[in-house]
Amino acid sequence: MKSNSQIQAVGWIENRLVLLDQTVLPSQERYLEINTTDGLIEAIKNLVVRGAPAIGIAGAFGVVLAAIEAQQLDSTIRRIYFERKLEAIEMARPTAVNLSWAVNRMRTFYEASDGSFDSHLIETLIKEAKKIHQEDINSNLKMASFGESLLNPGAILTICNTGSLATGGVGTAFGMLASGYENGKVTMVFACETRPILQGIRLTAWELNRCQIPYRVICDSMAGTLMVREKIAAVITGADRISANGDVANKIGTYSLAVLAKAHSIPFYVVAPTSSFDLNSESGAQIPIEERHSSEVLSVLGENVPDFDLPVWNPAFDVTPSHLVSAIICERGVIKSPNQERIKELFRSITL
Amino acid sequence: MKSNSQIQAVGWIENRLVLLDQTVLPSQERYLEINTTDGLIEAIKNLVVRGAPAIGIAGAFGVVLAAIEAQQLDSTIRRIYFERKLEAIEMARPTAVNLSWAVNRMRTFYEASDGSFDSHLIETLIKEAKKIHQEDINSNLKMASFGESLLNPGAILTICNTGSLATGGVGTAFGMLASGYENGKVTMVFACETRPILQGIRLTAWELNRCQIPYRVICDSMAGTLMVREKIAAVITGADRISANGDVANKIGTYSLAVLAKAHSIPFYVVAPTSSFDLNSESGAQIPIEERHSSEVLSVLGENVPDFDLPVWNPAFDVTPSHLVSAIICERGVIKSPNQERIKELFRSITL
Repeated sequence: MKSNSQIQAVGWIENRLVLLDQTVLPSQERYLEINTTDGLIEAIKNLVVRGAPAIGIAGAFGVVLAAIEAQQLDSTIRRIYFERKLEAIEMARPTAVNLSWAVNRMRTFYEASDGSFDSHLIETLIKEAKKIHQEDINSNLKMASFGESLLNPGAILTICNTGSLATGGVGTAFGMLASGYENGKVTMVFACETRPILQGIRLTAWELNRCQIPYRVICDSMAGTLMVREKIAAVITGADRISANGDVANKIGTYSLAVLAKAHSIPFYVVAPTSSFDLNSESGAQIPIEERHSSEVLSVLGENVPDFDLPVWNPAFDVTPSHLVSAIICERGVIKSPNQERIKELFRSITL
Repeated sequence: MKSNSQIQAVGWIENRLVLLDQTVLPSQERYLEINTTDGLIEAIKNLVVRGAPAIGIAGAFGVVLAAIEAQQLDSTIRRIYFERKLEAIEMARPTAVNLSWAVNRMRTFYEASDGSFDSHLIETLIKEAKKIHQEDINSNLKMASFGESLLNPGAILTICNTGSLATGGVGTAFGMLASGYENGKVTMVFACETRPILQGIRLTAWELNRCQIPYRVICDSMAGTLMVREKIAAVITGADRISANGDVANKIGTYSLAVLAKAHSIPFYVVAPTSSFDLNSESGAQIPIEERHSSEVLSVLGENVPDFDLPVWNPAFDVTPSHLVSAIICERGVIKSPNQERIKELFRSITL
């Protein structure tokens, strides 16, 4: 695949966690070295690293950092320190389930150890975090291939950023549309700018440009009229959490796109690895929706923040009910018209 | 009505046209004196004055300025100069029909004159422009009253700015929701921020604050999930042009809101004076949609404009087909489920 593979949002380089600082893209390509669990938590909260799969990978390396920190402490408090840090990592952002999925997977290796936080445990944890990263790279490629086969020729509409910046590899929705472009099916990508954080105009445009895929940025409010005026072959998005019945929590604005896609008879595809599924959430109603600070919305006013009280509602995610989803594409295959039965079936086939 | 009536977007004060500069609100309340037709055209293009009814009023005073300029010229070229300026005013913004409606109404007084551009003509034109302004004030009040009677209790969702900044008086959609608030029906107003120019977060929030109406600003992409999570009694918008069959051209994002309102069984009301109707446009397909410069969209990136080519699609308006409109409220009454027959009927009753 014509690749944005030089981009690495999360890396473990010479025993250090390195994050590409996504808050300053596209104007600066700055890498931050993260040496502490608290530093990682701060970086996740401030969106230095974002995108459900990428924060899952970062969270896994965060467990490594927590273990290294615990190792330095008196043996009587190591365990409680480690456990608290793991909880704090999981809580850094509440909606994307990949974070707690990765932390829980890492935790099992500690639990299987003798609790001494020896160098063997640290090495095991590093190996597992790298494995989580590698699995995500592989999943991305499988999803791109499964997803691409569903596409009809035409333009794609997408939201937020789901490429190399949001994952370990070529991306989720981004990987699918990039593969579609390589195979001559995708003629143009329309990227919603994705207010308030502007992941579309800052990050997805940057990745599309690097991959030399023809694109245009639109304001989120233009999606409806775009569907009337252009031949949109599909709307493709990622997911932060998918409940057992196939409801999809994703970046705010995804639900509006799904309703609009339905009204215009355009397929609506969700691309997400199995690590984004939360079978403990029966439906979208059980998924916690993070509300973020009003300053994210008001930042467009720059220095000119008005001197009156300007109340803002700023949910970072919304829930798209499964009946609006044409298919969920994960690394295990395609779940058309997703529902509880079909999702259960897919997970039954996974050998743990 | 608890009033934002101190706000005057357009004024003719001591024989001078004065515009409240809406490009610097809400951080600055700056008034610009406009002394030339070209200055007015520039002000309209740059959105110093905006909102279909307000630019209609400004355009009427622009005809006065054009006549004063023509008066200074050699008598052989006055007529052609005047006509060219009137055309240029009409062309300043293509979508809102109020501008050409007002210019055409003013033109008839010139055509009925002896063509000498004497002071009598100037006075007649000033009087007519003031009359257009006064009629808009009166229309606003009538629409607020007609519209308010349609409302069920609950919150309102609106887009762009339709208040005193967009009209001569209390506004179109804004007047209706303000009246609903006064009468205890409207509990809360949700204002779409309205990318790219942010009329919602800059102008509507400012007016809501002045009127002490409880409100929250949302990003445009949050409208869908808002409709799921809050009891929205109605979506209310203004219009830039309404075609003979009831299709409504309005601020980009309006169409998406109309589709979402339909999907959530929420009434969708359009509030606009008869001067916003264009019976020469059979349907929305005949309405010219202004596309504006990409810099409007990219301005959110501030100084950090990326050094790669960032292509943008920036239509300033969209068209909502009449079947999505629950009712159009104008100063002559309410047109429920608007169609060609009902609009024709309403205009038949207008004595010209």
